[in-house]
Amino acid sequence: MSESAVTVAIAFHSGYGHTARQAEAVAAGVESLPGARASLLDLSRLDDRLWSELAAADAIVLGSPTYMGSPSAVFQAFAEASGKVWAEQGWSGKLAAGFTTSAGVNGDKLNTLTSMAVFAAQHGMNWVSLGLPPAWLYSSTGTPEDLNRLGGFLGAMAQAPSDLGPEEHPGKADLATAEHLGRRVAETAARYAAGTRALAAVAA
Amino acid sequence: MSESAVTVAIAFHSGYGHTARQAEAVAAGVESLPGARASLLDLSRLDDRLWSELAAADAIVLGSPTYMGSPSAVFQAFAEASGKVWAEQGWSGKLAAGFTTSAGVNGDKLNTLTSMAVFAAQHGMNWVSLGLPPAWLYSSTGTPEDLNRLGGFLGAMAQAPSDLGPEEHPGKADLATAEHLGRRVAETAARYAAGTRALAAVAA
Amino acid sequence: MSESAVTVAIAFHSGYGHTARQAEAVAAGVESLPGARASLLDLSRLDDRLWSELAAADAIVLGSPTYMGSPSAVFQAFAEASGKVWAEQGWSGKLAAGFTTSAGVNGDKLNTLTSMAVFAAQHGMNWVSLGLPPAWLYSSTGTPEDLNRLGGFLGAMAQAPSDLGPEEHPGKADLATAEHLGRRVAETAARYAAGTRALAAVAA
Amino acid sequence: MSESAVTVAIAFHSGYGHTARQAEAVAAGVESLPGARASLLDLSRLDDRLWSELAAADAIVLGSPTYMGSPSAVFQAFAEASGKVWAEQGWSGKLAAGFTTSAGVNGDKLNTLTSMAVFAAQHGMNWVSLGLPPAWLYSSTGTPEDLNRLGGFLGAMAQAPSDLGPEEHPGKADLATAEHLGRRVAETAARYAAGTRALAAVAA
Repeated sequence: MSESAVTVAIAFHSGYGHTARQAEAVAAGVESLPGARASLLDLSRLDDRLWSELAAADAIVLGSPTYMGSPSAVFQAFAEASGKVWAEQGWSGKLAAGFTTSAGVNGDKLNTLTSMAVFAAQHGMNWVSLGLPPAWLYSSTGTPEDLNRLGGFLGAMAQAPSDLGPEEHPGKADLATAEHLGRRVAETAARYAAGTRALAAVAA
Repeated sequence: MSESAVTVAIAFHSGYGHTARQAEAVAAGVESLPGARASLLDLSRLDDRLWSELAAADAIVLGSPTYMGSPSAVFQAFAEASGKVWAEQGWSGKLAAGFTTSAGVNGDKLNTLTSMAVFAAQHGMNWVSLGLPPAWLYSSTGTPEDLNRLGGFLGAMAQAPSDLGPEEHPGKADLATAEHLGRRVAETAARYAAGTRALAAVAA
Repeated sequence: MSESAVTVAIAFHSGYGHTARQAEAVAAGVESLPGARASLLDLSRLDDRLWSELAAADAIVLGSPTYMGSPSAVFQAFAEASGKVWAEQGWSGKLAAGFTTSAGVNGDKLNTLTSMAVFAAQHGMNWVSLGLPPAWLYSSTGTPEDLNRLGGFLGAMAQAPSDLGPEEHPGKADLATAEHLGRRVAETAARYAAGTRALAAVAA
Repeated sequence: MSESAVTVAIAFHSGYGHTARQAEAVAAGVESLPGARASLLDLSRLDDRLWSELAAADAIVLGSPTYMGSPSAVFQAFAEASGKVWAEQGWSGKLAAGFTTSAGVNGDKLNTLTSMAVFAAQHGMNWVSLGLPPAWLYSSTGTPEDLNRLGGFLGAMAQAPSDLGPEEHPGKADLATAEHLGRRVAETAARYAAGTRALAAVAA
């Protein structure tokens, strides 16, 4: 078995397709790690496959648009439906991370990521941050093509104009930022899984 | 016309009835001010009456259970449906306030109130705080019967055990705290409305 | 006495001068309302004048850089020193608002504004939001010269590159946004003060 | 070398000694894991030992009282002083966690934990949650002696009356909750360190 044979579930909702683009970028980042598998799960379907994939995953990356400053109602319906798993703390110790898209440059995206981190903590999950310095306007030498152009930290932020479709937005920089998050979660999950195996071997 | 002829809409969702008890207490607080009228609006029905009552109200008090650390999906569906009003900033300058119930003592209720305050700010509304000092365990002389026993500030917090019905929970102290919030919002709205009339009279 | 004879205290800390520029813009906005007076108070001096100006003000606008995702230590030292006033809820019912500058485009500025709103609520103050729709990248027709280019709502956000001085940054759009906040707070305070006088006249 | 030879730094500020009691409980929890070492670091001294211990640690547990709804000014001064490390992302990939004490039952402790999580994310650290279900009033059969009586999730919460000293407060339940957090962080760090070694061995 590969040392990186981990599964990362990407549990997301997308209203108009922009956040779905971000989710696909996270998946590409996950699968750029040899042996890692990404599972894209659309939260508009709360079916058996969803819960079994989430139960099996080493890490769950949460994604939602920011609507009126918070994760979407579809995302929150998923959070509420996870109450059964929560009652048994079935996801405790799993890794979690998050991403969000909004039309506003700031757009209160941080409240969505904070709400996701609180949700993950209620499940006893541990939170993987983005792990990138801020860019673009952060210094006079930055460009809008920089990784983490928006300067987020708790998760991957993306921005897409409200009057343009998901074909071209979020742009390359935001998608590359999402890809970075996927890779980082996969690497962290692989390291954690290897540790679990190593300690189990010592204990055996 | 009475100087306090204000209308306070209480826009709430309640999953099992506990938050509805809190909403009724807010309404009682509003109507304890002579001339003030409370309008209880259940957010599980996003109908025309809801939007017209909200448009007419001097203040909107938002209520929701805290589910998994956030306002409920029903509440968030309302927030999203308010996007039409938002696009025209139709509620700009109105007063807003919030309340929430959860089973946990802390239970991340603050994230619900913060999310409500961010939502209200997106609408350009101004936020009325609870206006009570913390009580109960805050000092060695407090009791669980104290007003604001839980020590919230951004809004009214209530707590109800997860295995008991809404007949007895939230308890008297939390309902009195909600009532205080209702009265305070009504008084603030009355003062604000009187100021609007006074300045209009000067300008006329 | 003018109907707008209100005083707005602008209680701010600035590390390198960028937030001071924002504070001056808020002051200009306040004083654009005939009769309104702005009082700029540097929080690096917690002296008697500070506390007496704050006690006398109709509204307190809080300002701080966002450092590592939060208001600065100088700002927080002020918050802690305000504990004496808090114990007597001496600012209860006053209006409050907030502004912040950071180098990152998003830069977790929202956490600073949320922390300020929580602080204001602990004092029983009511929070005036920015009251502007989001702009710039929010739609394909926006420009970086737009008012509220960053898309904040709870308060006024500004952005300044980390390697450039306060002479040119924050730029015009962010300063105009701060000015808008100052004007809005002054108008809201004037309306509220007029209402207080009108209701007192009725009661007398 | 033991599989659990990890070091957990506990970087805390305590104003009156209550949070120091919590810090000691976290340390006891860390050292309950054979091979794990706790390093208690008082943030009122920003000296060389602090930065070298933090650089060497596998995990950093952050602690502060909640003052006016936020981490203390002393804590924030530490956060700002960490800017040098931040510029090189020197703590990226380390584990982090948090704890806080306040006098209020709710007392806006969540804003302190959220602010700490945002701070940790700016450093690229990954956040270990408390990992305990809520207790006490959460159900009709709970008691104030329960682990996680306050119902926090993002970190360990403790409560101590404002008029009583640190000898008896926080009480046993809150200290045991802090101890649980320390143990959990140490176990997570051990697993992560074992994984790092295992993957390095494969790569070698």
